[in-house]
Amino acid sequence: MHVQKIQVMTGSIRRLLRRNAHSHVTNLLIKLRPADVSRIMLDLSDRDQRSVFSLLRQYDRSLAAETLKSFGPERGLDLLADLSTEEITKVLQELESDSAAVFISALPEETAEQVLEGMRREESAEVQGLLQYEEETAGRIMTPNVFCLHEKLSVNEAINTIQTAQDLEMVFYLYVVDDRKHLVGVVSLRQLLVVPPSTPLKKVMTTDVIAVGTDTDQEEVARQVALYDLLAIPVVDQENKLAGIITVDDVIDVIKEEATEDIFYLAGVEADDHVYTGPFTSVRKRLPWLVVNLATAMLAATIVALYEPTIARFSFLAVFLPVVAGLGGNSGTQTLTVIVRGLALGEVSWENSKSVLLKETVVGVSNGIAIGVLAGAVAYLWKGNYVLGVVLGGAIIINFLVAGLLGTLVPLFLKKMDIDPALASGIFVTTFTDAIGFLSFLGLATYMLQHLPVS
Amino acid sequence: MHVQKIQVMTGSIRRLLRRNAHSHVTNLLIKLRPADVSRIMLDLSDRDQRSVFSLLRQYDRSLAAETLKSFGPERGLDLLADLSTEEITKVLQELESDSAAVFISALPEETAEQVLEGMRREESAEVQGLLQYEEETAGRIMTPNVFCLHEKLSVNEAINTIQTAQDLEMVFYLYVVDDRKHLVGVVSLRQLLVVPPSTPLKKVMTTDVIAVGTDTDQEEVARQVALYDLLAIPVVDQENKLAGIITVDDVIDVIKEEATEDIFYLAGVEADDHVYTGPFTSVRKRLPWLVVNLATAMLAATIVALYEPTIARFSFLAVFLPVVAGLGGNSGTQTLTVIVRGLALGEVSWENSKSVLLKETVVGVSNGIAIGVLAGAVAYLWKGNYVLGVVLGGAIIINFLVAGLLGTLVPLFLKKMDIDPALASGIFVTTFTDAIGFLSFLGLATYMLQHLPVS
Repeated sequence: MHVQKIQVMTGSIRRLLRRNAHSHVTNLLIKLRPADVSRIMLDLSDRDQRSVFSLLRQYDRSLAAETLKSFGPERGLDLLADLSTEEITKVLQELESDSAAVFISALPEETAEQVLEGMRREESAEVQGLLQYEEETAGRIMTPNVFCLHEKLSVNEAINTIQTAQDLEMVFYLYVVDDRKHLVGVVSLRQLLVVPPSTPLKKVMTTDVIAVGTDTDQEEVARQVALYDLLAIPVVDQENKLAGIITVDDVIDVIKEEATEDIFYLAGVEADDHVYTGPFTSVRKRLPWLVVNLATAMLAATIVALYEPTIARFSFLAVFLPVVAGLGGNSGTQTLTVIVRGLALGEVSWENSKSVLLKETVVGVSNGIAIGVLAGAVAYLWKGNYVLGVVLGGAIIINFLVAGLLGTLVPLFLKKMDIDPALASGIFVTTFTDAIGFLSFLGLATYMLQHLPVS
Repeated sequence: MHVQKIQVMTGSIRRLLRRNAHSHVTNLLIKLRPADVSRIMLDLSDRDQRSVFSLLRQYDRSLAAETLKSFGPERGLDLLADLSTEEITKVLQELESDSAAVFISALPEETAEQVLEGMRREESAEVQGLLQYEEETAGRIMTPNVFCLHEKLSVNEAINTIQTAQDLEMVFYLYVVDDRKHLVGVVSLRQLLVVPPSTPLKKVMTTDVIAVGTDTDQEEVARQVALYDLLAIPVVDQENKLAGIITVDDVIDVIKEEATEDIFYLAGVEADDHVYTGPFTSVRKRLPWLVVNLATAMLAATIVALYEPTIARFSFLAVFLPVVAGLGGNSGTQTLTVIVRGLALGEVSWENSKSVLLKETVVGVSNGIAIGVLAGAVAYLWKGNYVLGVVLGGAIIINFLVAGLLGTLVPLFLKKMDIDPALASGIFVTTFTDAIGFLSFLGLATYMLQHLPVS
């Protein structure tokens, strides 16, 4: 639905709620798609959100559940917070087991157990099956009940099976299994329609199936789906038995989530620190990063402290200290961002890392010379001291060289150590560019002291 | 294909090429998927890449074209660079028109025109049709030849049409049109299979179709597809005539591209500056950002220059200058990253901006108090000067408050002005946190001078 329409609808619902015209609100809501209801709820006050959700639960529980899903686990949990365990169970039961698992794993442990006990036996077993797998793996995010066809069927029998199956709106690929449920092939609905009905399924199917394991990281799952332009990917257990399926809409969520994680980590923010996260949760999440930054900044400051006598004599040096450090940090951040994203997109590997390092060093030094000469000239014109210009320019060139080297090596090294390179690269690189910046600038300045007339 | 298998295959191909065993290489390659060939090529030297691409062009031109597509336009252009216009035409002709348009628009103008002239008339017209639309719009990235069904057909006739249609491997939704090609409905293949064959199509189809216009921004297209969990979205012109279709695999590319753009802009890197971009192109792309940074850093430095006499007397102040500015910058970056990503994901709007601003201010001040007290204590213990501790702590608190305010307001304001908030927020916010950091720290220090014993 168009943004303008959503806004108009939001306004109407707000007004109707104020007049307690609940049946009107319900009539408006139940015609909408879950995604649209959730977009409307986003712009409502907390109280109105609760009213809307309560109406949905009364009159269209399936829509309530899908809206909750679209709302996401973090904001969704707020809506569930003041419901009884029984009510929570009724809503979550309406969801596919993979979505139900997301919410249940986010509930307080005791509530989660009660919800699992209260759910219909089959659904509960499915969710518990998913919860056995680790977070962010294929097993955790898959839909476990996959429609599949036996390899011994004919095409005609296969079509009949499809026609009589329930709940099968989204079939893109039909997976073919043997007696013991091993994944042996895949066939598309259209392939079935263009061959004679008596053809054995085995003859039509493709045996070269792209699949992932239950323990495959969700990021790798997303990479496979994107790489081969798939609409869904089957998940198999260690014996190659079909365990579930992950569809492309879930993959899109993973891609967005992982991109957000990288963007946030690079800025020193936790992945789950959203706009709508409460202020004190955000403080708790951001403070540790800032404390680490304080520690590294103080560490770099000890280098400045070594040169206090020089600064006492030539106080104008203090003016350019943050310039050297800041520019080096920016140059290092440019490099490390390209490398971190390159690692995430699979463009950088150990194999091509040598040429990448060479390139980034060349880029660092070239930019260093350009910016160094420019900064040096500005400083010379400003303070009328050519030695200052030379020292500033030289320090910038040295710092940019280091920025290029470390901006490349730090993320590569962290990746090799199985640490998320987005998570820690920034702190390492900027600490070093601060330190090297101070050291080279104040070191060069002290060395060339005899040429520096007292300002 | 598994990473290990790709690596083994890459090794074999490298060895076979060294021995000029071209037919062996070809035999290995033509069994692979385009995505796998392109992954192998990535780890080969430039020369070997050219050899592989030349073999593909000779023995499986369609695979060559798809590999080129998977390689992406930037790296792909390097491969096309030393081919004749005729050869380029032959390869690009094998691609779908939306992919061909991507490469043709990236070619030098003259070559592009010759290629368009050399292509089969129909394909050329299709590509030229796409190139009429602006870059990054739905019209530019859609596949123009959409399979569609006339509303007057029966389900049986519809199935027959599907069975006899060519090139129809990827049908998920079947779009229904009227006499004048207006989009009037949508139906899924499975819906056709579960109703009696004589049912009129009109009775089965859904009339509430989610569609985008030819001029819709690709980011909005991706948002719609993700929001409603679609596999494809139809594109209509201003008269609601069906103009094309965008499939989810292209949407995934858009989502990745837009995420990369945001990550890069936040770090001061151009969106098309990749790991494999040549060093001098990267220098040219990064240098302008660094020059802007130099300018803003110098601007902030003028504030320090105002307080040179204070620094000359109390040189230890220089030690803490970068600490105040750096921490404020980090805090501001945290806030603006959350806001920029929130804007991209549609979590922040003008409607909820007031509560967002309030939250970020509270977070900024709270973190400021925590970090300010900590930093003040460290400075006091280090230099044994309690006034220094108070000045440092106070300056950090002021700077964090400003960081929270500007980190929220700057991206919101840029968005309102239709400027990409990821592009320019960082420079604005860090310039201000530098300036305010210096001003508050040195200003407070100068004011409290009488309490500061000369060090």
